[in-house]
Formats: sequence, structure tokens, C-alpha cells
Amino acid sequence: MPEIFAAATDHSSVLLALFVMLAVAKLMAEVFERLKQPAVVGEILAGVIIGPSLLAWVQPSDLISVLAEIGVIFLLFTVGLETKPQAIFQVGKRAVLVGALGVVLPFVAGYFIALAWDGSFAEAMFIGAAMVATSVGITARVLGAMGLLDTETSRIILAAAVIDDILGLIILSLVSAVSQGSVSYTGLLKTAAAAILFTVFVALIGSRIMTRLAPAVERLRLSKPFFNLGLILCLGLSAASIYVGVAAIIGAFLAGMALAEATEGNHKMHRLMSGITEFLVPFFLVNIGMQLDLAVFRDTSVVVLAIVITAAAVITKFVGCGLGAWGMTRREMAQVGVGMIPRGEVGIVVAQIGLGLGVISGPFFASVLFMAVATTLIAPPLIKILYSGNGDDESDTAVFEPDHPEDFTRIG
Amino acid sequence: MPEIFAAATDHSSVLLALFVMLAVAKLMAEVFERLKQPAVVGEILAGVIIGPSLLAWVQPSDLISVLAEIGVIFLLFTVGLETKPQAIFQVGKRAVLVGALGVVLPFVAGYFIALAWDGSFAEAMFIGAAMVATSVGITARVLGAMGLLDTETSRIILAAAVIDDILGLIILSLVSAVSQGSVSYTGLLKTAAAAILFTVFVALIGSRIMTRLAPAVERLRLSKPFFNLGLILCLGLSAASIYVGVAAIIGAFLAGMALAEATEGNHKMHRLMSGITEFLVPFFLVNIGMQLDLAVFRDTSVVVLAIVITAAAVITKFVGCGLGAWGMTRREMAQVGVGMIPRGEVGIVVAQIGLGLGVISGPFFASVLFMAVATTLIAPPLIKILYSGNGDDESDTAVFEPDHPEDFTRIG
Repeated sequence: MPEIFAAATDHSSVLLALFVMLAVAKLMAEVFERLKQPAVVGEILAGVIIGPSLLAWVQPSDLISVLAEIGVIFLLFTVGLETKPQAIFQVGKRAVLVGALGVVLPFVAGYFIALAWDGSFAEAMFIGAAMVATSVGITARVLGAMGLLDTETSRIILAAAVIDDILGLIILSLVSAVSQGSVSYTGLLKTAAAAILFTVFVALIGSRIMTRLAPAVERLRLSKPFFNLGLILCLGLSAASIYVGVAAIIGAFLAGMALAEATEGNHKMHRLMSGITEFLVPFFLVNIGMQLDLAVFRDTSVVVLAIVITAAAVITKFVGCGLGAWGMTRREMAQVGVGMIPRGEVGIVVAQIGLGLGVISGPFFASVLFMAVATTLIAPPLIKILYSGNGDDESDTAVFEPDHPEDFTRIG
Repeated sequence: MPEIFAAATDHSSVLLALFVMLAVAKLMAEVFERLKQPAVVGEILAGVIIGPSLLAWVQPSDLISVLAEIGVIFLLFTVGLETKPQAIFQVGKRAVLVGALGVVLPFVAGYFIALAWDGSFAEAMFIGAAMVATSVGITARVLGAMGLLDTETSRIILAAAVIDDILGLIILSLVSAVSQGSVSYTGLLKTAAAAILFTVFVALIGSRIMTRLAPAVERLRLSKPFFNLGLILCLGLSAASIYVGVAAIIGAFLAGMALAEATEGNHKMHRLMSGITEFLVPFFLVNIGMQLDLAVFRDTSVVVLAIVITAAAVITKFVGCGLGAWGMTRREMAQVGVGMIPRGEVGIVVAQIGLGLGVISGPFFASVLFMAVATTLIAPPLIKILYSGNGDDESDTAVFEPDHPEDFTRIG
């Protein structure tokens, strides 16, 4: 009889799925911490294990993908909160070069690999586009956990990821239009202009508006006024950024950055935000792992294609972005290079669009999916190695709030 | 062209809906705080305003109801964190009486009102069942905001709500079975036994297990170990409680109570949890408001029925639960009585089950829905009035962490 009740309330299967995802993710995070490996890798592998590829305990669903999206949105928002606009503007020129080279090289590589594998022109364009997109969430998570978000290379990576996303949007729009046989250059220009204007406007003016609003916010009767303002701004700019065409995480990052100065030292607000982030980010990571289709390995030719695409994705991004940081030390160039490697959910989304338009064939789709997850798994250990020595080596198990030393205590 | 991108990523409409819900809810909360009214009322009314009844900016959806459910789950979990099992056992006997009388009177009233309105036998049973269920989330929210969760009457209300839920489950199972013409008394017994065993077992043993586990949890490499344990336990017991037949919030409350002693004084963990609660509870409140169908008022006879049912729901719960607290002061009896009035989402769920089984007719469904929302709107101001003087009068705008004095600062 309880089934009758359960069927209507119901949500029991949803809660069970969330419970399994979180429990296995945290178990794997613990295992990876003990192996001195990044926790994010464990959490993504948790998704591979419980996802359709292996145990099939949890199936990807719209609900999970929305939770995952909200998770990465708040992750980038909290990263933004730690990032003052000035710090980003200072690295602006270098970031443009990093972003641009990190877009061109992977695109060209993906394009020619697809052609070499007998892909069509449209297919080659799409594979190139899928190679372009950096998923900055993973890198931000690893650097945040190490307490290294305020290094110069971290800032370059964050700024380059924003530029990368705008370039990726333009390429994706172009590729989608070409694959459907109609390119409207005015439409394309409008898209690009809207994305750039939105980003520049919020980055330049947002912080000033928020700093000026701060005294009024403090006078609100609402409990936790800055926290609530942050929530509203984060969701609002995320939605707005999708509307102008860039990824939601860009809007969230800009929202955080706009509030960085006004909420500096407001530990309570930062802590409340990190509660949301810590709860939802595992769903983002597990959801990436769940997208991986291990069945791809049954066909040897696809295995080879997947490995080639993955290798090209790693090398071209590393070389392109590393070269973009020319003038810094070799180590710093390498840090920037590896930080941009993860393709994560962005690469998956591009591949899905291609599949939806009927442009990408099965083997290419499987290979791009593999590449997106594999680059995301490869990058964190490399980041950890290249950045170790930058910070306190013990801090890698610490929490994601480098500005608040009291958070480095282990109890939480 | 951005539409192509948006269509696949997409989530833009979801983010927009969440943004609108949160922004309007917080605006209304601010207005109500300024009018010295409870913020929850403002947030529920926000749902009425933006819901299908009026502006129709946001439609109720599965996703929103899941977020709402997670919100109220974490609300009850954080309430549980403030509630030591001992404090609940002390008020046990009285709570049983409060719960039982608060179930019997509303059921009888609902049953006879429905018969008087020419309802069928099955219909009358369902209206009675829908009158039974207390939604303790609303009361917990108001008392928490006033910093009064640790009064004796608060504890009685919380314990009685657990008992109320178990009795409600039994009644609902019985009513559902009768309305379908088949009552399996062994099945019913099993349901009741499972629910009671689960609740008693977790309440009695949970805290001891967690206190014993605490040193091991502290040794975990995982960052924020207690916070993560709390998340897992909260989701796990919520899912388990639905499985045994009681509401998810009961499991969440028990999970919090199990951790209350082990995490006492762990302000960081409590703050992280309250970040999740504060983010998601507005969706719970707005979602209740969105369920209200104002079109019901177009038919005068339905208006009368809705008002009669609502009045009966308020009076019977107030009198029944108040009498259950016999032996306390009159003021305390009244406090317990009003604390149990809100029916909220639980009443709505029962009505939906009746509708799903084809037992309840349209006017009755509309009236019960109205009753559920109206009782939820009526109770908070009454609670505020009856409890004012118990605590610091100024603390009603304070945050939801009475154990942590530093949280009473306004900046957050």
C-alpha cells in the first residue's frame, strides 16, 4: 500500500538516485584522496561506474543534468567571488592569446583528423568545434581545492576560458549554419556582438554597480541579504548569458566577479554559497562520467579514433594555450596549458548538437564523448603535479575557500 | 543561431524560471518583513502571484517540485540537527496525544463535511484523510526564523508531526484500500509496523551510531567530512522513509537528529547545510503557492465549501492538538495548536492521490487545495503572535541557526 503514497509524492526514485550518486562519489573521492590523486577524478569515475556503461544503477536524466548544471553554475559563481575584475583585466592581453591559440589549434586538428577518417566536410567542422570548448569547471575545482585560485596562471586560465567560450560560440554557430547549408553573416555578427557586449559590459560595470548598491543591500530586512542577492544575480546572469548565446557558467562567473569586491571578507556569505556548491558539484562530476559509453571499445577502429582524437585534444590545447602564455616561465606556460585541457560537459554538448542535426555519425560521436571525459580525467593529475610546490603541499585536501584560513581546519 | 546552442545545452528556460521564483520570493519576503509579517507568507504569496492563477510566469513542473522537495527535506534535516533525541523523548507522551487528537478531530470533521456536501463514502474518507496531514516545514521555518526551535512546545510540535505523519500514512493506506474496495488488514499492519519500526529504530539507535562513528569520520581524507556524511545520510534516510511509507521529511528529520549530538558546535557544517536550505526552501514555499487555483472562486458553492473546509481544518487541528497538550499553560496549548495547523504540500499530495484514483470530484479537490494553502498562510502570523515574548522580539528577522549567536549579525 505504501506504493500508492509513493507513486504520488513520489520522488522516491529521484532521492534514491541522488543518494547513490552522492554516496559513491564521496566514497571514490575518499579513495582518490588516499591515493594522493585529485578527488574530482574519483567523482567522475564514480559516474562511469554507476552509469549505464557499467552497473547501470543510475540513468542520466533531465533532472540530473539540471542539478549538474546548477552545480557547475554555482561552482563558477564561487570562483568568480574570489576573482576581482582588476585581477582579470591585468592578464587580459595574455588571456586573449591563450584563448585564441587554444581554439585554433584544436579546431584545425579535429577538422583534419575527421577528414582523414573519411568524415564529411560538415562532420569535420563539428569534430573541430567539439575539440575547441574548454570546461573550466574542472580546473577551477582542482585549483580551488589546492587553494591556488589567486595565482597569475589561474587568472589567465579563467579569463582565457571566458574568451574561449565566446570564440567557441561563434565557431559553433558558424559550423551549425554551414552544416545546414545557410550562413547568415549578419546573424553571426549579431550573435558574436551580443556575446561580447554582454560579457564586457557585465565585467566592466557589474562590480561598480554592486559596490555602489552594497550599503542599500545591508539595510534590507531580509535575512542574509548578500547571500540572497548573490543567488538572484547568479541565476539571473546565468539565464541571461544563455539567452545571448554563451554558456551559463560564463554568466555565473561574471555574477560572482561583480560581487567579489562588495562581499570581500563576508565569510558567512561565502560559506553559505560553498554549501550549495559542495552539495551540487558532485552531481556535475558524476553526470560527466555517466555520459561515457564504454561499449565504444568493442569496435577496434573506434578505439583507435577515440585515442587519436583524445591525444590530439590534449596536445593541441596544451601546446596552443601554453604558447599563448609565451613570455612566462616554462612551468607557468605548462600550467596554463594543462589547465585548459578538460573538455568536460562542453565538448559533450557540442557533440550532442551535431548528433541532433544529423551531421555526426555514431563512431565520431562516441569518440568525441570519450575525448570529453578522458581529457577531463587526464587534466587534474597533471594540474596537481605542475602546481605542486606553488602552494602548501598539504593544502590539497583543504576546502574550496582559499580566502578564509579558518576553513582549512579539517572538521566540517 | 544561439537557439541551436540553447536548445541542446539548454536549461535556459529552467534557469529563468528559477531566477523568477527566487527573485519574486525574496522581494515578497522583504515586503513582508517590513510589514512585520512572516517572510514565509510573502514567499508563498509570491507563488500565487507568479503561478498559473495570476501572472502565469512560471508553471508548476516535475523539476520544480523535486527542487521543492529537496528544499523541505534539507529544512527538516537542519531542524533535526538542532534537536537532540533526548529532547524529543522527554515530550514523547504528550506528543503522542497531540498527534492523535490532531488526527482524529480533523478526520471526523472532513468526513462529515464531505457527506453533508453530498460526497460519496469514499470521497468523505479522502477529504477526512486530506485534513489530517500536518506540514511541519512551515512551522519549523517560522520558529527557526524566530530562534525558538528549542522551546518545549517546539519540540512537542516536531515530535507530534512525526506521529501525525505515521497516523496519516495508516489512514491514507486504509482509505485508499477502502475506496478501491479491498482492504488487506495484514498489508495495513505491515505498512504501519514498517513505518513505526523504521522511525523508532532510527530515533533510538541513529544518534548512538553517529556519535560512535564521529572519530572515524574526522579521520577521513575527504574535505568537509561531517557535511558530506550529513548530505549522504539526509538523502539516504529520506529515500528510505518513502520506501517504508512515511514522508521523506520524516527521514530527513531523523537523519538530522541522529547527527545532532555528533555535530554539536560544528558551526561550519551547520552553516554549509544552511546554505543549501536557504537556497532551496524558497522553491518549496513558492511551489505551494503555485498550486493554488484562484479560478475556484468563480463558483460560489465551491467558495462556500472551501471556506467551510478551511475553517474546520483550522479549528479541529487547533482544538485537537491544543487539547493534546492539556496540563501545560493555556498559552502553550495554543502555541502547540497553531503550530500544527499548516497542511501545506502534504494535504495537496493526499488530494492528488484521491484525484488520481478517481475518487475525489473537482469541487472537493479545489477546496482541499485551497484549504492546504490557506492553512499554511494563516498559521505563520498566529505562530508569530503566540510566540512573541518567548524570545527576543527583534530576532524574528534573524537567521535560521539559533545555536550560533554569531549568525544573528545582519550581514550574510
